[in-house]
Amino acid sequence: MKIGFIGVGAMGQPMLANLVKHGHQVLAYDVVDAALAGAIKAARDSELVITILPSSSHVESAYLGSGGVLEGIGAGRLCIDMSTIDPSVSRRVAEAVAKRGARFIDAPVSGGVPRATDGTLAIMVGGDARDFEEARPVLAAMGANIIHVGPIGAGEVAKLCNNLVAGVAAVAVSEAFRIAEGFGVDPKVLTDVISKSSGNTWVMEHMHPVPGLVGKAPSSRDYAPGFTTDLMAKDLGLVVNAARELRVPVLVAPAAQQALRLASSHGFGRKDFSSIYMFLRASSRESPV
Amino acid sequence: MKIGFIGVGAMGQPMLANLVKHGHQVLAYDVVDAALAGAIKAARDSELVITILPSSSHVESAYLGSGGVLEGIGAGRLCIDMSTIDPSVSRRVAEAVAKRGARFIDAPVSGGVPRATDGTLAIMVGGDARDFEEARPVLAAMGANIIHVGPIGAGEVAKLCNNLVAGVAAVAVSEAFRIAEGFGVDPKVLTDVISKSSGNTWVMEHMHPVPGLVGKAPSSRDYAPGFTTDLMAKDLGLVVNAARELRVPVLVAPAAQQALRLASSHGFGRKDFSSIYMFLRASSRESPV
Amino acid sequence: MKIGFIGVGAMGQPMLANLVKHGHQVLAYDVVDAALAGAIKAARDSELVITILPSSSHVESAYLGSGGVLEGIGAGRLCIDMSTIDPSVSRRVAEAVAKRGARFIDAPVSGGVPRATDGTLAIMVGGDARDFEEARPVLAAMGANIIHVGPIGAGEVAKLCNNLVAGVAAVAVSEAFRIAEGFGVDPKVLTDVISKSSGNTWVMEHMHPVPGLVGKAPSSRDYAPGFTTDLMAKDLGLVVNAARELRVPVLVAPAAQQALRLASSHGFGRKDFSSIYMFLRASSRESPV
Amino acid sequence: MKIGFIGVGAMGQPMLANLVKHGHQVLAYDVVDAALAGAIKAARDSELVITILPSSSHVESAYLGSGGVLEGIGAGRLCIDMSTIDPSVSRRVAEAVAKRGARFIDAPVSGGVPRATDGTLAIMVGGDARDFEEARPVLAAMGANIIHVGPIGAGEVAKLCNNLVAGVAAVAVSEAFRIAEGFGVDPKVLTDVISKSSGNTWVMEHMHPVPGLVGKAPSSRDYAPGFTTDLMAKDLGLVVNAARELRVPVLVAPAAQQALRLASSHGFGRKDFSSIYMFLRASSRESPV
Repeated sequence: MKIGFIGVGAMGQPMLANLVKHGHQVLAYDVVDAALAGAIKAARDSELVITILPSSSHVESAYLGSGGVLEGIGAGRLCIDMSTIDPSVSRRVAEAVAKRGARFIDAPVSGGVPRATDGTLAIMVGGDARDFEEARPVLAAMGANIIHVGPIGAGEVAKLCNNLVAGVAAVAVSEAFRIAEGFGVDPKVLTDVISKSSGNTWVMEHMHPVPGLVGKAPSSRDYAPGFTTDLMAKDLGLVVNAARELRVPVLVAPAAQQALRLASSHGFGRKDFSSIYMFLRASSRESPV
Repeated sequence: MKIGFIGVGAMGQPMLANLVKHGHQVLAYDVVDAALAGAIKAARDSELVITILPSSSHVESAYLGSGGVLEGIGAGRLCIDMSTIDPSVSRRVAEAVAKRGARFIDAPVSGGVPRATDGTLAIMVGGDARDFEEARPVLAAMGANIIHVGPIGAGEVAKLCNNLVAGVAAVAVSEAFRIAEGFGVDPKVLTDVISKSSGNTWVMEHMHPVPGLVGKAPSSRDYAPGFTTDLMAKDLGLVVNAARELRVPVLVAPAAQQALRLASSHGFGRKDFSSIYMFLRASSRESPV
Repeated sequence: MKIGFIGVGAMGQPMLANLVKHGHQVLAYDVVDAALAGAIKAARDSELVITILPSSSHVESAYLGSGGVLEGIGAGRLCIDMSTIDPSVSRRVAEAVAKRGARFIDAPVSGGVPRATDGTLAIMVGGDARDFEEARPVLAAMGANIIHVGPIGAGEVAKLCNNLVAGVAAVAVSEAFRIAEGFGVDPKVLTDVISKSSGNTWVMEHMHPVPGLVGKAPSSRDYAPGFTTDLMAKDLGLVVNAARELRVPVLVAPAAQQALRLASSHGFGRKDFSSIYMFLRASSRESPV
Repeated sequence: MKIGFIGVGAMGQPMLANLVKHGHQVLAYDVVDAALAGAIKAARDSELVITILPSSSHVESAYLGSGGVLEGIGAGRLCIDMSTIDPSVSRRVAEAVAKRGARFIDAPVSGGVPRATDGTLAIMVGGDARDFEEARPVLAAMGANIIHVGPIGAGEVAKLCNNLVAGVAAVAVSEAFRIAEGFGVDPKVLTDVISKSSGNTWVMEHMHPVPGLVGKAPSSRDYAPGFTTDLMAKDLGLVVNAARELRVPVLVAPAAQQALRLASSHGFGRKDFSSIYMFLRASSRESPV
């Protein structure tokens, strides 16, 4: 299939490579603003448009902006946005696309660069069921676990809600182990206790924030990501903002967002988000009294 | 063995019954303040003292107060405090006990009334390894999973740190599902997505806050506890206070503490703590504009 | 002057009346979505466009949407947006207006319906200094304290930052008095102490959250607004979102936002925002133990 | 009068000097733990005992501990505790003192070392009205503004509640100015706007966190205290803990506490607490993307 692919960043690059490997013909554009001028061309010359861009406003510009996808898209064409963005922006763009007689689904990914490279990303899709079925073979070139979650925006919502829990859990686990260490409790023993009890989490099992306890965890490789603190802070920001628009009260999500934002600006932004533990550790220095 | 047992509340009652069933001779006292006057007698006439009381200050009075355990305890005797309290209080009491030539371990439990009744509580023990071994047969009458965590206070720390993560997770999961519902995402589908991803938690698997998704969860029985919101708010309060004394910064723990405190005073105090979801739902009513 | 006025809500109505009283000829449109179709006409037939709308997205639609102001505005014309919205939306709209050769300033107001009626609103203006001077006579028909704060968006920023402090202060003062009452301290005496000390705030002096201490405070009139909890929650939401976009960490602002959001959904949304005190009071009911 | 004075720290030293200057005969002891052994002697040989110690547990030891004040105090004698501590500890100590037939009032101070030196501290007193009157001449040697707030503990409560609002306000004002700066708004103009509006606070007027706007503010002297971040974090910790014991929900106070705790461990602990602004500024560094 002839695919226009907008957004060749760290994630987009291996995803694009996998599309090519599966025999698709891909017309690719960088994420940089200048290149967005090519969006109209990407849309005009392709059977299918894929976008994967760093923010809600990038996606809005790429589709709705002057020289954007909308100005080039033919009636009936399908657009797949794989960016992680505000679900209400997905809806707004989808409506505008629909007005041009074309179709839109949101399909954010999780798994990071390693699984983008292997073509085994998890892909959560929001949109019409037939559009989902039509997109599936193309998505299958990039991901292994492809789920239709619900209507437009639902893919974003599912991804963000998962990350809300994962991000909060990483902060909670880190707080727990900092306290335990303050009392001289061996983190290995505490891990054993919690792993059999009500506090067990995927985060502790697979990306334990304390170095040396879980071999494959980022903490055991100097917090090489995985998923960066910057990206997790961004996702928590998106989900807290979504809660605001829905008037749903949230208490732990904004607290975790700010914890990660602080960690980011204190040097942990490009580390794995489990490095929030190291930020808390660096923040427990006694000031001399 | 001749055991003085101070604190026959909802939890203490079945625990005491199990001790008797295992052939121990138990001299029992209620938790009410008046009965604490009996502590000195309980200590004098027993080979072993067990306490399970509702708060740090109850424990301090029972041991250190006028007419308390310390005034009756013989040299070499062992005291087991099974209350959930501030670990620094455990340490203070242990020191005072040691000055009298006696011994003290902290051994808080988890599992609630059902497992207290079955004699299958989890018991986390802090204190000297030999004292732990000496206490083990008695503890085995009440619990199934008995772990020596570390020095005095470590049992409390382990319990509280586990509950920190469990309590925070319950709030995070509830926030996530409230947001998802606001976007019309089916909670069952979201549960499937999260259960295979980085946001998975014991809390969602076994006590999913949304009714009807996990058969045995409290949410499917009108949030019958389990572990009440009041108790979880208390434990989060203890752990946040411990963090304060250690000067360890914590961000999500106090946010979850206040969320549960609010839920408690809005009618969910004696429900299972997963009912925080219902509090958030009750708190999302649009006010008329 | 011939003025197109879009947004005749509770605030807009007396503001519009004051414009007419000052001899302006006003072409007025309601805030409801249907009426926005009139925006193009309002823009085409007026020398000056004024908008005062309830949200960022209303403003975006009114200016940028199909049939919006932009499609009717003549080159050189001035637009004054008096809505309280996201300052980055002000900037975006201003850019689009500039592309059509017209001009835009943001001029949010404070003082509520009473001062809108008296024509004594405070008006904080962002935009070009000459545009500000040109707008001043018109603004003077509606407000008494008219300040040029800085470039486009600065009016919004100033209003939101003021409300950040006022909103947080109302929550802090309420928390302080709830604690003092718990210890049996007379709120009148505490007010005297604080009013002479480092904790003094405009909020306590003029809108003391505890009823009966300050005669003219909303609390002494059953929390009749003043400025509603709903509007304060909205403004805190806007400023927290602005902080997110700037990557500025904020800790007390989101905590106050969620406190007010909760108060709103528990029946205090249309009361003055100092009623957060009553929400905290309603939230301190002991649950029976 | 013959006064036993326990706690000659940075604050105690000038306070003691003022007592001597007023003709009192003072038997003084250091705050260090070893010196507390002298408490019994201080109590036995004095007509009046004054304590000013760094923490609740120091006060408990000094009065209730082995060799403490209680063991030496004569019936009818008056004790004045000028420490800033948990008001429920004040109550507990007062009860124990009463059991010995002696009397106790709490009288924490504010104003810092400069006003301790000038003898112009503000002193907030909790306790019996006659005890207050009896203590007043002695207190007048150290302070200028001496208020009887209520029953025992009320002095502490008043001080802590004032500091709750002041501490939260400092964080709120700092957040507001960081956001405004992010949008390029001149902090001087914003100060003018807020000072005439609902966001005005004593904190902004007298200790503006942004350097260069208020001449006498600590921020204009490299944040020389004033009142340190460490002490404000301690006081917020005390008041949040008091709220916990009262089951009063608090949202902004714990957020401010953690903000100051973080600032403390990142190098601002011994600076004035308005340096929270500098911590937020240091925490807004973009991490490279």
